[in-house]
Amino acid sequence: MNSFLNVEDLGDLQQALAEATEIKNDRFKYVEKGRNKTALLVFFNNSLRTRLSTQKAAQNLGMNVIVLDVNAGAWKLETERGVIMDSDKSEHLLEAIPVMGSYCDIIGIRSFAGLTNREYDYAETVYNQFVKYSGRPVFAMETATVHPLQAFADLITINEYSKKIQNAGRPVKVVLTWAPHPKPLPQAVPNSFAQWMMAASKPASALQTGIDFVITHPEGYELDPVFTKGARIEYDQMKAFEGAHFVYAKNWSCPGISRPDAYGRVLNDYQEMLDWTVSDRQMAVTDNAGFMHCLPVRRNMIVTDSVIEAPTSLVIPEAANREISATVVLKRMLDSLK
Amino acid sequence: MNSFLNVEDLGDLQQALAEATEIKNDRFKYVEKGRNKTALLVFFNNSLRTRLSTQKAAQNLGMNVIVLDVNAGAWKLETERGVIMDSDKSEHLLEAIPVMGSYCDIIGIRSFAGLTNREYDYAETVYNQFVKYSGRPVFAMETATVHPLQAFADLITINEYSKKIQNAGRPVKVVLTWAPHPKPLPQAVPNSFAQWMMAASKPASALQTGIDFVITHPEGYELDPVFTKGARIEYDQMKAFEGAHFVYAKNWSCPGISRPDAYGRVLNDYQEMLDWTVSDRQMAVTDNAGFMHCLPVRRNMIVTDSVIEAPTSLVIPEAANREISATVVLKRMLDSLK
Amino acid sequence: MNSFLNVEDLGDLQQALAEATEIKNDRFKYVEKGRNKTALLVFFNNSLRTRLSTQKAAQNLGMNVIVLDVNAGAWKLETERGVIMDSDKSEHLLEAIPVMGSYCDIIGIRSFAGLTNREYDYAETVYNQFVKYSGRPVFAMETATVHPLQAFADLITINEYSKKIQNAGRPVKVVLTWAPHPKPLPQAVPNSFAQWMMAASKPASALQTGIDFVITHPEGYELDPVFTKGARIEYDQMKAFEGAHFVYAKNWSCPGISRPDAYGRVLNDYQEMLDWTVSDRQMAVTDNAGFMHCLPVRRNMIVTDSVIEAPTSLVIPEAANREISATVVLKRMLDSLK
Repeated sequence: MNSFLNVEDLGDLQQALAEATEIKNDRFKYVEKGRNKTALLVFFNNSLRTRLSTQKAAQNLGMNVIVLDVNAGAWKLETERGVIMDSDKSEHLLEAIPVMGSYCDIIGIRSFAGLTNREYDYAETVYNQFVKYSGRPVFAMETATVHPLQAFADLITINEYSKKIQNAGRPVKVVLTWAPHPKPLPQAVPNSFAQWMMAASKPASALQTGIDFVITHPEGYELDPVFTKGARIEYDQMKAFEGAHFVYAKNWSCPGISRPDAYGRVLNDYQEMLDWTVSDRQMAVTDNAGFMHCLPVRRNMIVTDSVIEAPTSLVIPEAANREISATVVLKRMLDSLK
Repeated sequence: MNSFLNVEDLGDLQQALAEATEIKNDRFKYVEKGRNKTALLVFFNNSLRTRLSTQKAAQNLGMNVIVLDVNAGAWKLETERGVIMDSDKSEHLLEAIPVMGSYCDIIGIRSFAGLTNREYDYAETVYNQFVKYSGRPVFAMETATVHPLQAFADLITINEYSKKIQNAGRPVKVVLTWAPHPKPLPQAVPNSFAQWMMAASKPASALQTGIDFVITHPEGYELDPVFTKGARIEYDQMKAFEGAHFVYAKNWSCPGISRPDAYGRVLNDYQEMLDWTVSDRQMAVTDNAGFMHCLPVRRNMIVTDSVIEAPTSLVIPEAANREISATVVLKRMLDSLK
Repeated sequence: MNSFLNVEDLGDLQQALAEATEIKNDRFKYVEKGRNKTALLVFFNNSLRTRLSTQKAAQNLGMNVIVLDVNAGAWKLETERGVIMDSDKSEHLLEAIPVMGSYCDIIGIRSFAGLTNREYDYAETVYNQFVKYSGRPVFAMETATVHPLQAFADLITINEYSKKIQNAGRPVKVVLTWAPHPKPLPQAVPNSFAQWMMAASKPASALQTGIDFVITHPEGYELDPVFTKGARIEYDQMKAFEGAHFVYAKNWSCPGISRPDAYGRVLNDYQEMLDWTVSDRQMAVTDNAGFMHCLPVRRNMIVTDSVIEAPTSLVIPEAANREISATVVLKRMLDSLK
């Protein structure tokens, strides 16, 4: 595995879930596999869960870890050729990236969408420069458009908590719902979540009984069909929630699909937004659904206290599975090194 | 040991000092004990000695270490329920803390007193939230009101440098003296020092001959009796120093005991303060006392150049013992993990 | 080896190059040598290559690594005695440095020239305080006047890429050329490069056939003879480049030798400077020279895109050799510990 960006990079999902279970039962089972291998984790943006869980995953595998914080403002890389570099950009990516590659074996990249230029963001410019110029396997620790370590952790969580439903031979109904937030946010998490749920939709592709996946959001927030193709979209949130086994809440700004003029913007006013906050009202029509969110979560915007504190809330085990998804991915990358 | 905040958490002090000696003679004796265990060190405030010595201690035990810097301003955690989180606090402690706990085995917390709300500070709100919600053993790397790794290192130092006095069958006289500083400082260091000295006051509780402990400070700086109960307080600094074997200097702001209105404030004017600077004048009446301070120290405010540079100055070996105290505490926590 | 600042600290260069080859062939050959030893890397200034390559080197040797970022502005150490420390300097170096030494086995220091006080910079004040007060072996990770880990990596690179010339029995011609930059830069890199090239100038001192070393720069940029003594200086850049096997480009500000009044300043105007940009024009008169630079490099200021992207460009393998030079130096320091 030379790059981890999309669900296809992981191959067979049933096999991936089996490895996740194996790691979870014995986190240090492969502690010799990473001996004398170095993971370089490059953060162009802040991180709590990703920073901690990926370090822990690398240490589970016995790797050396080097964390590099690149303050978004402080280190501007020139990307064009022919420019006389006499102003604030002190290094060209054509030098910076191969050098980083020369001191490590595997590189993780966190680099958020700027939300001003859709084409630039959706080309995954920064991530792909590392793939092209570092000479090392690269994995996404949330990039401009995807967050696959999160989506894999989500799939692991859904698999773990749906055993009863699977054993009853029923497909697992998962709803991704837009939810309010005071600031415009990237689409990386919902993009990946949709991509992974669709990849797991057919029976035995990941879960034995498959996933019945529905997306609900206000009009204008349509996600890029590259990620959602085949998914059912339902603008009526209450209808979408009916009979759901898992509710995945997340805010995202306008993806610029149905509203190309509004890419990266918040489309609704404050009061309108708050109708979408996940509360007992919506959860009442589900099939006792587990509540999921990638965290950090703004309470009483995204979700009420009572829903996130209910016994059905899965946000903590979901976050804990970030260690597991990262360990499986790094193990695969180590396997492909020689 | 599930929490390390107060002297009682360590149990028998003679035993603890014996373990300190064992570690000091062979720092890596227990390097296998922490294999595949992770210490997460969370810094809400800056640190030099604590950061370095605690990392070193964890590595002495073969642990993996993850350092998390939480800039006090940058990451504001919501602590109330029912709040619509639509402003600057992006995460609730009820999510943030269990997540941190899920990626590690032991958590260290540095979080200073705000010095504006005595009740909040003395409730050890931040530390206790980690104890309650992280699901992991937690230890203080200087919290709002205590600095037990420092006090334990101080006790180790006093024990090491008082062997002659102990062998002569005499109690060891230790003086804690207030000293001037240009800024208002927390009471964590003097609180813990007083608590530990009183715990070691009885013969054979820690030192064979016990500790005769005296506190001296200007009026108004009375420490919380929770930490000092039973200690002798002497407002005349020269009198307090008479015959002392160890002088421990430290500034602290008003603890709000005798002056509840003045919590966290400096009570004296500049010239008045400077009378309390530890100099040859006061050291002359001691029994050739060792000079101690937790560092960093402002020279010629807290102590003169000549006292801190004298052969009797113990500030460097005292700081070096921070590695030892942290190693003993982490070893105890590792022992209690399974 | 108790200090690594100058080329003499490394002793016999042929032996050092042999060790570099050994490490390069098996980077983890000495992974047991640093077991339970701690390298403390203190950064008073920013760093990418040095930070990554030195961490990697320490891990190659199995060492524990602690990185300490000391923001130049945030931690002001008092250096004088007798000062009443009542303002912004919260610690005296006489306490801070021995304490840092007490938690590690080897210390690396990065601390750039201030470029305002030549005497202070050229006395290597900060570095030498660590040598004097830390009680540990200290090595330079670029100090005020030298960057020996870079110069050693440069020598390794020149040796690797000049085998044909050496085998033909010819001395290797190396040119250090001043090149333009928008900001005034320290002289550390050219100082060390000149020092190391001169040390390698005699046949069999390092390379079998020796190095023929020439320095070229505009008038006023004469480097300190302490580093360049014996080197040929040629003000005509084209003449200097004739027949060169390696061209090493670097900007530096006025070293204050021929122009003591102008220390740390840029002497030429923008257009004048750009004549010195290394381009195909100058490379055409070389003997197919390898292009070198320590990075980060400002393209089309220091060097054109076409020269740095040519097959003869060595900047990436040169940077990669930073891991090798640091591993050799740390290995030597570990050897001398007991």
